[in-house]
Amino acid sequence: MYQSSTRERAIIKFRDNRFETLNDHLASEEPLEIQLAYGPVSQRQQMSLAVTMRTPGADFDLVYGFLFTEGLIQSRKDVLQMRYPGVQLSPEAQENSILVELHPSARFDAARLQRHFYTSSSCGICGKASLEMVQSQSAFLLSTHQPIIHPDILLGLPEALLPQQSLFNHTGGIHAAGLFSSRGDLLYLREDVGRHNALDKVIGAVLQKQSLPLSDTILLVSGRAGFELVQKAVMAGIPIMAAVGAPSSLAVELAEAHNLTLVGFLRDGGFNIYTGGERIVLQ
Amino acid sequence: MYQSSTRERAIIKFRDNRFETLNDHLASEEPLEIQLAYGPVSQRQQMSLAVTMRTPGADFDLVYGFLFTEGLIQSRKDVLQMRYPGVQLSPEAQENSILVELHPSARFDAARLQRHFYTSSSCGICGKASLEMVQSQSAFLLSTHQPIIHPDILLGLPEALLPQQSLFNHTGGIHAAGLFSSRGDLLYLREDVGRHNALDKVIGAVLQKQSLPLSDTILLVSGRAGFELVQKAVMAGIPIMAAVGAPSSLAVELAEAHNLTLVGFLRDGGFNIYTGGERIVLQ
Repeated sequence: MYQSSTRERAIIKFRDNRFETLNDHLASEEPLEIQLAYGPVSQRQQMSLAVTMRTPGADFDLVYGFLFTEGLIQSRKDVLQMRYPGVQLSPEAQENSILVELHPSARFDAARLQRHFYTSSSCGICGKASLEMVQSQSAFLLSTHQPIIHPDILLGLPEALLPQQSLFNHTGGIHAAGLFSSRGDLLYLREDVGRHNALDKVIGAVLQKQSLPLSDTILLVSGRAGFELVQKAVMAGIPIMAAVGAPSSLAVELAEAHNLTLVGFLRDGGFNIYTGGERIVLQ
Repeated sequence: MYQSSTRERAIIKFRDNRFETLNDHLASEEPLEIQLAYGPVSQRQQMSLAVTMRTPGADFDLVYGFLFTEGLIQSRKDVLQMRYPGVQLSPEAQENSILVELHPSARFDAARLQRHFYTSSSCGICGKASLEMVQSQSAFLLSTHQPIIHPDILLGLPEALLPQQSLFNHTGGIHAAGLFSSRGDLLYLREDVGRHNALDKVIGAVLQKQSLPLSDTILLVSGRAGFELVQKAVMAGIPIMAAVGAPSSLAVELAEAHNLTLVGFLRDGGFNIYTGGERIVLQ
């Protein structure tokens, strides 16, 4: 791989009233453009779908996860091929552009991307419209009572993740998303400067190996739980999501509407349950 | 104001091996749509510019800051009027849509929004193109050696901010951006679930009261320093930016290209200087 996920750089450290020059590692951040080719064989079209700032590495996972959690593909089979098309570009730019060839039979409505989903709602732009938008896109309905886990499973997740966070350990500044079995075994870990990218990378990695929903799993995210992260968990059919930080109001509403167990402030030997507490019991 | 910046909710707290139900405060998160009316009087046009998830409160500051740091307006005078147009909407939605009336003489190129700036670069999508994009938009050139501050000024910023962070103190989970004088006095503080929103709110608040650049100030952000945050600081002409967390590689490159002093890991009585160390001296 041409691009590294970290960069070395000389910095000045100030501590105990003195300056010291040393080498440090930074998390790489680079733009990634997602190009999409779609439509039946006879009317093939191509468009630039999005540009996102991300940490290079696991790019195909990122793109699979992005396409799926945005509701643009329903399964891996909707993608015919994914590749770096940039042979004519400078070396640095070659791995910052990915071309997704959708299967000719995949449903893709380019016009829908142009519209604002929100404004089509009867009440205009509001939290309720945001919730309804996810409702209309998500394919999975969670069973209310599975899985059931002991609080100790949750308490053990952050330390199970930390030794594996190679980029975080190198740079001290990157978000992580970890997918665990309901017994607390780490299945997938991805890191990125963008918290939504880390989660898209996890979901995209899963999508290429097995089918969704992820009905017997627990998701741990390193930062706060905002609306967009819960939306992605809902899209993947994850039943339990835990965050090291706080959730937002709309994230809690969305979790509640989809029977997702949402846990926040998972740290220092405790946690808060915001929704779906019936999945976490002491026996 | 109809919408509150926090929401109360019953949660279950797990600690010391037992569950307890109590009331907690969550940071509000709601979508905000920015509508734009532009063009000469005879050919007035209107478009939906963006939808962003944000914490309600200081919405006009947010929109002013967003328009400015995205390079869509050059000063407050480019905006004729800003208002909530949603009288026909449901009460919840009324304050989630803001109409910006640009001055008829303000330059605004709607077509430019449709294009991807990145791909017009000779090297395609890469960090260098991202840096050049900011270069082409930013109006200010920083003086290399002003202001000069003592390390103690930096060390005092986080504790100067914390008592003022009312939303953080209530919810434990929200980002803050604080603008300080070069002597360390807090000038502006804004909070939001989105880190970029908090900074846009600060810059937008300033923009309505005084002219930019902010040549004698220090910016403190609560999280990490990514490319987009440094970009906004550069657009506002802020000479010193400090983050509680780590910077990314591209953020450091951008800071260096614009003579911005970038400080990271400002906590526990120390900090790291990534660029522009000549502004921080012990005498």
